[in-house]
Amino acid sequence: MQDLPSHIDIHEEGPREGFQFESRIFPLADRVALVDALSESGLRQIQVASFVNPKAVPQMADAGDLFQAIRKRPGVRHTALWLNERGFRRAQATPGVDLKASLLLHTSDTFSHRNNGCGAGEMRKEQERWIGMYVEAGLPVEAAYVMTAFGCNFQGDIPLSEVQAVIRWLVDRFEGTKQPLPVIMLADTVGWAVPTEIERRVGAVRDIAPTARIGLHLHDTRGAGMANFYAALRMGVDVFEGSVAGLGGCPFAGHGQAAGNICTEDIVFMAHEMGIETGIDLERLIEAARQAERLIGRTLPGRVLRSGSLAGYRT
Amino acid sequence: MQDLPSHIDIHEEGPREGFQFESRIFPLADRVALVDALSESGLRQIQVASFVNPKAVPQMADAGDLFQAIRKRPGVRHTALWLNERGFRRAQATPGVDLKASLLLHTSDTFSHRNNGCGAGEMRKEQERWIGMYVEAGLPVEAAYVMTAFGCNFQGDIPLSEVQAVIRWLVDRFEGTKQPLPVIMLADTVGWAVPTEIERRVGAVRDIAPTARIGLHLHDTRGAGMANFYAALRMGVDVFEGSVAGLGGCPFAGHGQAAGNICTEDIVFMAHEMGIETGIDLERLIEAARQAERLIGRTLPGRVLRSGSLAGYRT
Repeated sequence: MQDLPSHIDIHEEGPREGFQFESRIFPLADRVALVDALSESGLRQIQVASFVNPKAVPQMADAGDLFQAIRKRPGVRHTALWLNERGFRRAQATPGVDLKASLLLHTSDTFSHRNNGCGAGEMRKEQERWIGMYVEAGLPVEAAYVMTAFGCNFQGDIPLSEVQAVIRWLVDRFEGTKQPLPVIMLADTVGWAVPTEIERRVGAVRDIAPTARIGLHLHDTRGAGMANFYAALRMGVDVFEGSVAGLGGCPFAGHGQAAGNICTEDIVFMAHEMGIETGIDLERLIEAARQAERLIGRTLPGRVLRSGSLAGYRT
Repeated sequence: MQDLPSHIDIHEEGPREGFQFESRIFPLADRVALVDALSESGLRQIQVASFVNPKAVPQMADAGDLFQAIRKRPGVRHTALWLNERGFRRAQATPGVDLKASLLLHTSDTFSHRNNGCGAGEMRKEQERWIGMYVEAGLPVEAAYVMTAFGCNFQGDIPLSEVQAVIRWLVDRFEGTKQPLPVIMLADTVGWAVPTEIERRVGAVRDIAPTARIGLHLHDTRGAGMANFYAALRMGVDVFEGSVAGLGGCPFAGHGQAAGNICTEDIVFMAHEMGIETGIDLERLIEAARQAERLIGRTLPGRVLRSGSLAGYRT
């Protein structure tokens, strides 16, 4: 048996992923209550909302109000997502946002065009500007997301060489600066990864950036999410993003619908059972997951929220 | 990367697990149509029904009719489950049943009492009688199931030593006979396993029975099913049981409800993507899974049936 990490960091994405995914807009007080419950669970980083065009994503129009209403708790970061400078400026102007400076690196031209209106190369140049913007704001660049790092619904399989090129760009960009390399987050944005590819790509990234911390953003679109999580643990990956109750996924959606992130309490359960610490109180997190399900008002994909942990059977 | 098996055998349990789980009794013609669709998918072994007390399980009362109505196909075995001699005799008297002689070995006294009305030790003696019954019927003993091999909701964690004792009994029982050791099927009956325990227990079983083929019967009760599948592959396990569409699980069930088997088409998808052959036509299996979901009339846990395979994106 290979050594697994003794501790992993799990970043919660549920409030942002989930409420953005739903067509309904849920009462602010309910969303605040969910974030507050998550803040009490031992999670140290929670992505609360995104600062995006409110015409395109009306569910996130009151992101500022949400940040101001949630209860701050020492040691818990409440972060936000933005996709352009305008979004970053809004986040910057909002009290209560823990600004986590991230880069978005694309491997698929088509995916980048559809999401950003420009190709992957242009988007990379744009990231140069973002780095400047972050430096000016006094923020360290904390994470670099490699989007569709395994495959893309528009372009098909993403060659490993594309991922390697992105990582080389990143390493070159930070080499010789005083800034440390950000955490490299490989994102399986549309659920193409399987464990052997996790191993191959994490290994290839580590070859190029041996000192970088590597994390994974996984979706459970085709059922391989938890197997990918385990494969990543075996490769020493110790940063993961998850979504409480599997928020953002929808078992009722028609064929072709993208599923949500891997479920936070399911990965916490599995980690703890394997002796890996997360700092999270699983029982409180399960309660938060049940709260999320009651709020959404339909069955969410998480398993442990339904079956419970094993604690009750062991006493 | 460790060598994975180049080919695995997947046995379908959906019709038996699924229809037994549902409180409704579905029209015979619809159940026949689903089994027929599965028989066309490349699956080589399908457990169609169980011969159990029709008063306790009315859903299986017409098991005989079902076996007689399904279309036989060369190379496809249509097997049945029984829990006592009376069930075996009914199966034996039913045309169309491919009699697969199996043993049921218990690790948990309480679980055995609840299911069989006697403890694990007594149940083992009963298996002596089953072996005689099978020999008399001219049937090789093909599989030996180790029930609750990881944990039990009534007894808690099952010590590895209990599993080892069961395997030693089995090896002793077959040693010196002309009968080969049956495939040892470790069953995570109520969803306690995590990947590290899969590795530990498969390794321990192999130490005691180095020549035995080992298989796994996994449930996805707490979300670790697919990770357990991957851990088992890495240990060289090459026999798995699955349930099409995740039949037998119910995302609508209340807390505490046991989830179904791992989903057959999800494991086929993951296996194929990792270069492991199954002999199964994934697209036909996905169609059968959708047929199962239409028949049951509510969302089933499988993922690939909703998202589709990657074939369409690659062309």
